[in-house]
Amino acid sequence: MSDTAHMRHALRLGARGLGRTWPNPAVGCVIVARGRVVGRGWTQPGGRPHAETMALTQAGALARGGDVYVTLEPCSHTGKTPPCAQALIAAGVGRVFVALGDPDPRVNGQGIAMLEAAGIEVVTDVCADEARAAQVGFLSRVTKGRPAVTLKLALSWDGRIATATGESQWITGPRARARVHAMRAHHDAVMIGAGTARADDPMLTVRDLGVDHQPVRVVLSRRLDISTDGKLARSARDVPLWLVHGPDAPQDVRAVWRDLGARLFEVPVTTGQVDLSATLAALGEAGLTRVFCEGGGTLAASVLHHGVADQVAVFSAGFAIGAEGMPGIGALGLDRLSQAQRYRLEGVEVLGEDTLSLWSSEV
Amino acid sequence: MSDTAHMRHALRLGARGLGRTWPNPAVGCVIVARGRVVGRGWTQPGGRPHAETMALTQAGALARGGDVYVTLEPCSHTGKTPPCAQALIAAGVGRVFVALGDPDPRVNGQGIAMLEAAGIEVVTDVCADEARAAQVGFLSRVTKGRPAVTLKLALSWDGRIATATGESQWITGPRARARVHAMRAHHDAVMIGAGTARADDPMLTVRDLGVDHQPVRVVLSRRLDISTDGKLARSARDVPLWLVHGPDAPQDVRAVWRDLGARLFEVPVTTGQVDLSATLAALGEAGLTRVFCEGGGTLAASVLHHGVADQVAVFSAGFAIGAEGMPGIGALGLDRLSQAQRYRLEGVEVLGEDTLSLWSSEV
Repeated sequence: MSDTAHMRHALRLGARGLGRTWPNPAVGCVIVARGRVVGRGWTQPGGRPHAETMALTQAGALARGGDVYVTLEPCSHTGKTPPCAQALIAAGVGRVFVALGDPDPRVNGQGIAMLEAAGIEVVTDVCADEARAAQVGFLSRVTKGRPAVTLKLALSWDGRIATATGESQWITGPRARARVHAMRAHHDAVMIGAGTARADDPMLTVRDLGVDHQPVRVVLSRRLDISTDGKLARSARDVPLWLVHGPDAPQDVRAVWRDLGARLFEVPVTTGQVDLSATLAALGEAGLTRVFCEGGGTLAASVLHHGVADQVAVFSAGFAIGAEGMPGIGALGLDRLSQAQRYRLEGVEVLGEDTLSLWSSEV
Repeated sequence: MSDTAHMRHALRLGARGLGRTWPNPAVGCVIVARGRVVGRGWTQPGGRPHAETMALTQAGALARGGDVYVTLEPCSHTGKTPPCAQALIAAGVGRVFVALGDPDPRVNGQGIAMLEAAGIEVVTDVCADEARAAQVGFLSRVTKGRPAVTLKLALSWDGRIATATGESQWITGPRARARVHAMRAHHDAVMIGAGTARADDPMLTVRDLGVDHQPVRVVLSRRLDISTDGKLARSARDVPLWLVHGPDAPQDVRAVWRDLGARLFEVPVTTGQVDLSATLAALGEAGLTRVFCEGGGTLAASVLHHGVADQVAVFSAGFAIGAEGMPGIGALGLDRLSQAQRYRLEGVEVLGEDTLSLWSSEV
């Protein structure tokens, strides 16, 4: 097996943690000795233990002289546990292959320097592009101060999400909806606007996938005017519910939501809505690295308008609703086509009777 | 090679004639003797000679005792030439494999009966589904009295075809546009509404593909109020231009268009537009079997509302225009999602930075 193949193995292991390690990155680690995999690890739920610790524990004495493949630079700072770079040195590993440097100012090259100072050969940039894609959330939080955002759209051919009378269930079929649940599970949080909360009364949980954790549910509602008797409210003690509101949300309503178990975030208001940049900054501050935005049209437009959609997942069903229907993307204030931000196509899938196309911003 | 493989060969040959054999079907024929292909033919431009004639001519004496694979039942009626069934009998072929019966009342089983009466074994329904798809236009004209319609949509994520100011070039990229030209070449005609003619001043021709024939250009314009100095008008002597108008189109304007070289069709008006059913009936009467509808939004909605879109080709580009943009599909008058006609997904393609999904009505 090549170094690339071992690193891809580590990347697959790391992906297991997506959505459950925040604010820590979801890292994977493979240790190979005499041509055999002797240790495998990935960041555990909540962010500890780290992937390297798991893999070293599994490898035991077999790690000595082995090659370590790790998807992110080993940490160099002492937190609740000693740094991973130190643990690798102590285990006497031979070489360390690193996919990507850790931009966290507490690491930022020091993990690699620590290994090299101990005489361990370090090979960097192995599968760096794939690792960067896997760490988009962690990198975004560290370098931009906000979580990465995936915008999900589930649309008719003509970009509608409901009839004129508001009927929206269902646009896409069961296979597409199952894929949405799997996507939710790989994000730290699901985010919607107040209009969608009112119209759909959704749970926003991951269902029917055998997944035992739930993403945080984030609702943007300037005045907190969503039902305190809806599914979100009634489940707030069981599944985290974060509400982002403006300064003018009434204090008594805030108290009701706090009593229901919701966590509240106050941000400024811009053009009548809670400010999206401030919202994402607050969510990043609270530790979120990956947010899955499920609309509605106003929030989707805001996410696109602010240029914060790192990935866009477009589910398309095989019919038209017509121009009276509710648009899945609101007004963007675009005068010229050249002003539109174009996204790069990453792939297309067939999901039963629907299609899914995945797009990424070219940042 | 199996019978199916030989018939698929014949189907590929038949496809060469799509868009240039109307009002005749585009048929393919392969003759196999002693395990070797000795004759190949397809319907020639204009519909004559027929595929069987071409293949028999190529095979010559080698056809005797051979197996014939033909994608549509051989004709049994004497037109400008003797019937193909008679020609196959005269050539002394051994067996005839037929993909699909010809519903034309002048044939309708009599071609097969003529062969069998001459002692030739006939095997039917070989690759019947594929043959039916290939003959969708011919079958539609014979059984429904109208051409088959392919609705093309080239949309942003949110189903828009232009900005609020009308800028529409370009939504999709060069590979998608090349595919549109290839699709035009495989249809008998390209059809648009007057609004698109006015807004885009298009040529509607097949370009840059080395194709030496052009589909008929059909424009629906109730009052014939499109520019007599535009590209369509100026090219009407070189490439057929058919205008479908209402009874209230001024006589002097009609005369101008006739002088320019256009062919005029008068049909009734329904809810302010030329009636779509009457339009398609007139186009079918004039011989068209396959029409490629390229919008705009009002005509696309009409095609969907009337349930006459046999295939829908959705080109999607990787950006949003926003809710102020021009919708690619106009109002449909849909109250409930259950009223929407859903289409069956046939496939998805990546075309550069765009996607193409193909859908068919399940009729």
